[in-house]
Amino acid sequence: MSAKPKVIIVGGGFGGLSAAQALKSALIDVTLIDRRNYHLFQPLLYQVATGSLSPGEVAAPLRGVLSRQKNTRVLLGDVQDIDPAAKRVVLADGASFDYDSLIVAAGSQTSYYGHDAWQQWAPGLKSVEEATNIRHKILYAFEVAERLTDPAQRRAWLTFVIVGAGPTGVELAGAIGEIARQTLKNDFRSIDPEDAQIILLDGSPRVLMTFPEDLAQKAERSLAKLGVQTKMNTMVHDVDRDGVGIQVNGSPQRLTTKTVIWAGGVTVAPFARPLAKRTGVETDRSGKIKVGADLTIANFPDIYVVGDLALSLDKEGKPLAGVAQVAMQQGAYAAKAIVRKVKGQPKQEAFSYFDKGNLAVIGRAAAVANVFGVHLSGLPAWLVWALIHLLYIVEFQSRVVVFIKWAIQDVTFSRGARLITGDAPTDFNFNREIASGGSASSSKVA
Amino acid sequence: MSAKPKVIIVGGGFGGLSAAQALKSALIDVTLIDRRNYHLFQPLLYQVATGSLSPGEVAAPLRGVLSRQKNTRVLLGDVQDIDPAAKRVVLADGASFDYDSLIVAAGSQTSYYGHDAWQQWAPGLKSVEEATNIRHKILYAFEVAERLTDPAQRRAWLTFVIVGAGPTGVELAGAIGEIARQTLKNDFRSIDPEDAQIILLDGSPRVLMTFPEDLAQKAERSLAKLGVQTKMNTMVHDVDRDGVGIQVNGSPQRLTTKTVIWAGGVTVAPFARPLAKRTGVETDRSGKIKVGADLTIANFPDIYVVGDLALSLDKEGKPLAGVAQVAMQQGAYAAKAIVRKVKGQPKQEAFSYFDKGNLAVIGRAAAVANVFGVHLSGLPAWLVWALIHLLYIVEFQSRVVVFIKWAIQDVTFSRGARLITGDAPTDFNFNREIASGGSASSSKVA
Repeated sequence: MSAKPKVIIVGGGFGGLSAAQALKSALIDVTLIDRRNYHLFQPLLYQVATGSLSPGEVAAPLRGVLSRQKNTRVLLGDVQDIDPAAKRVVLADGASFDYDSLIVAAGSQTSYYGHDAWQQWAPGLKSVEEATNIRHKILYAFEVAERLTDPAQRRAWLTFVIVGAGPTGVELAGAIGEIARQTLKNDFRSIDPEDAQIILLDGSPRVLMTFPEDLAQKAERSLAKLGVQTKMNTMVHDVDRDGVGIQVNGSPQRLTTKTVIWAGGVTVAPFARPLAKRTGVETDRSGKIKVGADLTIANFPDIYVVGDLALSLDKEGKPLAGVAQVAMQQGAYAAKAIVRKVKGQPKQEAFSYFDKGNLAVIGRAAAVANVFGVHLSGLPAWLVWALIHLLYIVEFQSRVVVFIKWAIQDVTFSRGARLITGDAPTDFNFNREIASGGSASSSKVA
Repeated sequence: MSAKPKVIIVGGGFGGLSAAQALKSALIDVTLIDRRNYHLFQPLLYQVATGSLSPGEVAAPLRGVLSRQKNTRVLLGDVQDIDPAAKRVVLADGASFDYDSLIVAAGSQTSYYGHDAWQQWAPGLKSVEEATNIRHKILYAFEVAERLTDPAQRRAWLTFVIVGAGPTGVELAGAIGEIARQTLKNDFRSIDPEDAQIILLDGSPRVLMTFPEDLAQKAERSLAKLGVQTKMNTMVHDVDRDGVGIQVNGSPQRLTTKTVIWAGGVTVAPFARPLAKRTGVETDRSGKIKVGADLTIANFPDIYVVGDLALSLDKEGKPLAGVAQVAMQQGAYAAKAIVRKVKGQPKQEAFSYFDKGNLAVIGRAAAVANVFGVHLSGLPAWLVWALIHLLYIVEFQSRVVVFIKWAIQDVTFSRGARLITGDAPTDFNFNREIASGGSASSSKVA
């Protein structure tokens, strides 16, 4: 019907959305396909998992974000296959869509490094559902502990283990520390939430390996103030319903806990596999798709891969990290490359990542930040963090509401979204836990 | 351990929470037991179902609300049985708790009048999970319609049927009308959301039977402006995955639709059954527990029943409605009665309900209200509605956030919480719907 070139974007995360927005005024038919109807602001997802924000505040409906962009349509669909010769992608429901140029921004998912059975005991933090599941687990653990009388069992329920001490793990551990020390302070009668043990594990020698060392040390001190113990050089070799098996500097130990959260690693989205197979492109061990300096893949100059799915090298030949900043810059680059091609203009220079720095927040009004090489910590770092995150939250409404919530929380220590909703995770049964654990009888109510 | 009298409150809804708060300064051990860890502000739940508010904004953690009330503990538990002779309630997990006085405020649940199989096609609106499920269904319907090409199928997905024209049904229908006409206006490329058919059914001769007739007429006009068709004198005799079988003034018809929402009726919470059985108290046809003028049940002067579970008569001998106002006044009355008894003071006068009026909101900045006998409609009614609801929202934080969200939405028409989250309802499969329905091929993308 239309003679305009067709661009399909797979994925509405940071990379895909930034590509779509960069195509705003182009004479191009843009189709953005995602399995979800919303863009998720991943860096704040830990605040949903810890009851500070509601899912609606860290997500923006893709249709809403792109509704005024008349050259773009949004489709809810699961891209499962590709025919690169015919220039066509195929959805799970069998529908297929032709493209002239394709931008693959399918992202990443939680990886248990071959131990997928751990997932049921140690949810990751990539989706809204996982975040509310983690919120459920954390809050339920305090509820069960309040009802139990056996000290060992109570301790198991009041022990929280976070695997992975990158920014997500550090932020989660800090937030759980705050919940135990401040938010729930006056809420229980039989337990003292401050007795909660919060343990942050990582195989690396220190937290926040991607940050400068002085900031990592400051982060560790801030975590310690919130009651978080850090266990570094620690490998996880088993996770089950009653705890975690670890090796600390080679010697085996066991942590008894009912709540494990996995911030341990990511792998590529499933679409990486058919994409690699059909195009014959090189991948790394984790399945990332190798792209050239122009972000296209070998022999297919019309297929761009951006964000977490792309194996893209910086000037020193080191792979770029899977962070929002990289994805956004790559998405915009790919969009611009397509516009230039359509207009018959010469190619851009090779993609080059402009690193603005790193940020991680540890509890209330404390953070560490490396901004353009300047190292900040404490309140200044937190203010930079708050400003940057607010500016990036896509939708106007969320931005105002989130800001006000933070302001109120910083004054009151309260967390408004402390709901235990949805079905309990498999094999997690409050009645059974209590019944088997010897619950408080009425004589204990005082 | 303590010689203080023990009061157990079953349920943390309007009745139970109001009772607990009225016992704040009493020398009494109060235990509030609920299956949920939060108080739900039911009258705003339709705004969660229609994407205006997030669950966290219409719910407040019970522990948080009661954390400063040192004589009160909150227990997460499911009260399933009672031994009124031993003065003891029994939880699903087997634990039992003794009381000196009991306040039963267990509330109500959706009733399908014996057709429980309809539930899977026509969710009710009593819980947060149901509200997000309805939100999922409404938003998904537009997504499926966008992908379909067959006009009849598209029409079925763009038809929304709401059963029950009480305040909840009217408010839901109005909000869906707004979504179709305003919120989603620019969001789709193949369908026009304004083509959505919204049909509000009820067996009664008019909408809002509990309101004065002039206000009901105004409500019907406001609904018509939002594209809502009202079908009164209409009985539902069948609900399945493809539609609703109805009888309009006795003649059978069928509405083809993929989205049915049940605002049709309520019945008592499950605890009503063991309570009636063990105490031998009289119940009405729907299972409501008959209470005396002091809200206790016959032969058990220490068991109070308040709210939706109570069959309580007004001065004319008519049963009081199952609304928040009644529950709150009854909860406070029962609490006061217990305090007087503990202090050895004479009994209060018989419970008497002070009716402040009725309110229903229809879309943006329009409502009908009967406030102390004054009939309001349009913007004045909406302002009264907004003010009253904000004042009653329990937690300070929610109040501020909700107010700001409303203000923004009224300026921008946007709805921030339009997320399709969670698993799709049983037998609802996007891929299958599209695959079987003939989806748009790439040539339709324009």
